[in-house]
Amino acid sequence: MKLFTPGPIAMDPETIALGGIQAQYFRTPEFSRIMLDCTAMLKTVLNTPDDARMIFLTASGTAAMEATVMNLFTPKDKVLILSGGTFGKRFKQICTIHKIPFKAIDLEWNEAFRPEILDQFEGAGLTGFLVNMCETSTGQLYPMDAISAFCKRNRCCLVVDAISSFLCDPFSMKDMGADAVIISSQKGLALHPGMSFVAVSKEAFEERCAKNEVRSLYFRFTDYGDDMVRGQTPYTPAVGIVNQLNEKLSRLIKQGIPAYTNGISELSMYFRKNLSGKTQFTIPDYYPLSNCLTPVFCPKQNAREVFALLKDRYDIYITPCAGEIAPFLFRVAHMSGQLTKQDIDELINILRLLSEENV
Amino acid sequence: MKLFTPGPIAMDPETIALGGIQAQYFRTPEFSRIMLDCTAMLKTVLNTPDDARMIFLTASGTAAMEATVMNLFTPKDKVLILSGGTFGKRFKQICTIHKIPFKAIDLEWNEAFRPEILDQFEGAGLTGFLVNMCETSTGQLYPMDAISAFCKRNRCCLVVDAISSFLCDPFSMKDMGADAVIISSQKGLALHPGMSFVAVSKEAFEERCAKNEVRSLYFRFTDYGDDMVRGQTPYTPAVGIVNQLNEKLSRLIKQGIPAYTNGISELSMYFRKNLSGKTQFTIPDYYPLSNCLTPVFCPKQNAREVFALLKDRYDIYITPCAGEIAPFLFRVAHMSGQLTKQDIDELINILRLLSEENV
Repeated sequence: MKLFTPGPIAMDPETIALGGIQAQYFRTPEFSRIMLDCTAMLKTVLNTPDDARMIFLTASGTAAMEATVMNLFTPKDKVLILSGGTFGKRFKQICTIHKIPFKAIDLEWNEAFRPEILDQFEGAGLTGFLVNMCETSTGQLYPMDAISAFCKRNRCCLVVDAISSFLCDPFSMKDMGADAVIISSQKGLALHPGMSFVAVSKEAFEERCAKNEVRSLYFRFTDYGDDMVRGQTPYTPAVGIVNQLNEKLSRLIKQGIPAYTNGISELSMYFRKNLSGKTQFTIPDYYPLSNCLTPVFCPKQNAREVFALLKDRYDIYITPCAGEIAPFLFRVAHMSGQLTKQDIDELINILRLLSEENV
Repeated sequence: MKLFTPGPIAMDPETIALGGIQAQYFRTPEFSRIMLDCTAMLKTVLNTPDDARMIFLTASGTAAMEATVMNLFTPKDKVLILSGGTFGKRFKQICTIHKIPFKAIDLEWNEAFRPEILDQFEGAGLTGFLVNMCETSTGQLYPMDAISAFCKRNRCCLVVDAISSFLCDPFSMKDMGADAVIISSQKGLALHPGMSFVAVSKEAFEERCAKNEVRSLYFRFTDYGDDMVRGQTPYTPAVGIVNQLNEKLSRLIKQGIPAYTNGISELSMYFRKNLSGKTQFTIPDYYPLSNCLTPVFCPKQNAREVFALLKDRYDIYITPCAGEIAPFLFRVAHMSGQLTKQDIDELINILRLLSEENV
């Protein structure tokens, strides 16, 4: 099985092995130690301010997006949402459900975000900005420098969904001045799916989360923040995934984040360079791409059929798209450090065969 | 490591092994098949009506309790909560947060629920009843026959948190006439923690969940119910745990649920019979006990110290209590089919040594 999917992704043998052990009882000082170590290491790899809080949610990324919005904003806020695909739209859905007033920058699937579009929102009384650093449904990487500068000028509380971008593109919560950063276990970290992590700035935790009447028990960040002081969570965590996280972060930090991210970047460039010209498949150049995945045009075949064919014939998994772009676009993810140039050669060879077959 | 804890519990070798494999991509017909098989098997083991819906939540049991309340009730309801400990109180917290009007039957930690107490609520216009079949914090097993009959007479929507009782005490959603039943991966099922499952009756799904304006994206049951028709979830599930669930349920069904539950019942009776007289530790007889765990009095030592001592000296994990009862009560869980009478003999021997040491 070769996974070119954006989660689950190809896991390291060390991570896989740790999934195969008995889950330990967790209300112990020993487990607290693991949680506190994970917290410290996550803060390092995200380059958070020292006094940021880490929230460990046993839930998938969407839950973390929703919980972050619920904890950081109220109906008295006015937030801007950069909506360039499925996950930008998800922030809009969440704000609608929780009655958080918002404006949206809606992009077509093939439309680049241009920072000039922010001009109209300068001094417009915005209090928050919600952005998916990489819009996973298209691979577009947004210019975080411009967005961060806008938020600093306008004193906007910046929420960055870094779920697919994390460990694939350079990242620093501190440099961005972000108030919340969201990541998930089954993306760049290459763990089993089931947990998400939110880094929250001290200011946002104290001035927003703590003062907000959050209409949820399970998602109330203050309970998580308070319990994490002693290395615990209010509710049973996915113990197996915490064990994997602990081991993976230790190795990542030993290797160094820039080196790791460079490796992912090289893989993505290798794929992009080598696909062109050799197959009928092409890469859209409408917008800047994250290193985490590449969208691929499928001019002659239905993209979903290509997905099914690669799966059934070769046990290779590319990623189908959803909605209007599903017939002609698929995605190839590069999030895993387990993938090699040989794996990419193999994928490109197969795509070339398909081009010749003209299936 | 010997776990006498109510989650995580001692897992079967087959389940542990399945945690140690690469998580597969899940938006495929193959994974849909696994999900649909799990759904059918869960409906069998819970003995649900054929047309009940199964909701697969990637989250811990508290999230499932909260989601169930949010989906089944509104501020127009009036529910009764049986609150005999930590988890009964949790239902009260959830209803308070979501502004669901409720009455509570509050029990002291050592007080049995007597069905006569329901008399005052007959014909009182209640629309729902929330109960933890076993209150995990004390081990009290509530008389579900009386509660079920009350709900049928009063046309109350019955929500049963069977999280700790499931597979330990005989259970039938159909016989109970329950509208929702909640279970969790790391309890009787003996999987890794991280998922919870809610069975919802057709009537509750159509007349309550579908008509209710649920103020959450992640917890909206109709999205889960609709996606499960094709064997999918709206958000990334804990794929590793789904694989474990599938394997475990197949074995459980082959063995037969009554046989399995009998085994757990025997273990609990063996512990209770053999503890008495041999040690300073005694078992409270204030209320009927679930087979899933036994509360144990600790007359001479601090119960938390006994927990720490067993952990540090023997790698044996009993379960500490929380709150006012923490100093003098601990709990011994019997939820795992992996535990043997020899394990119990060993635990009792150690408790006897401690009694003699008079630590």
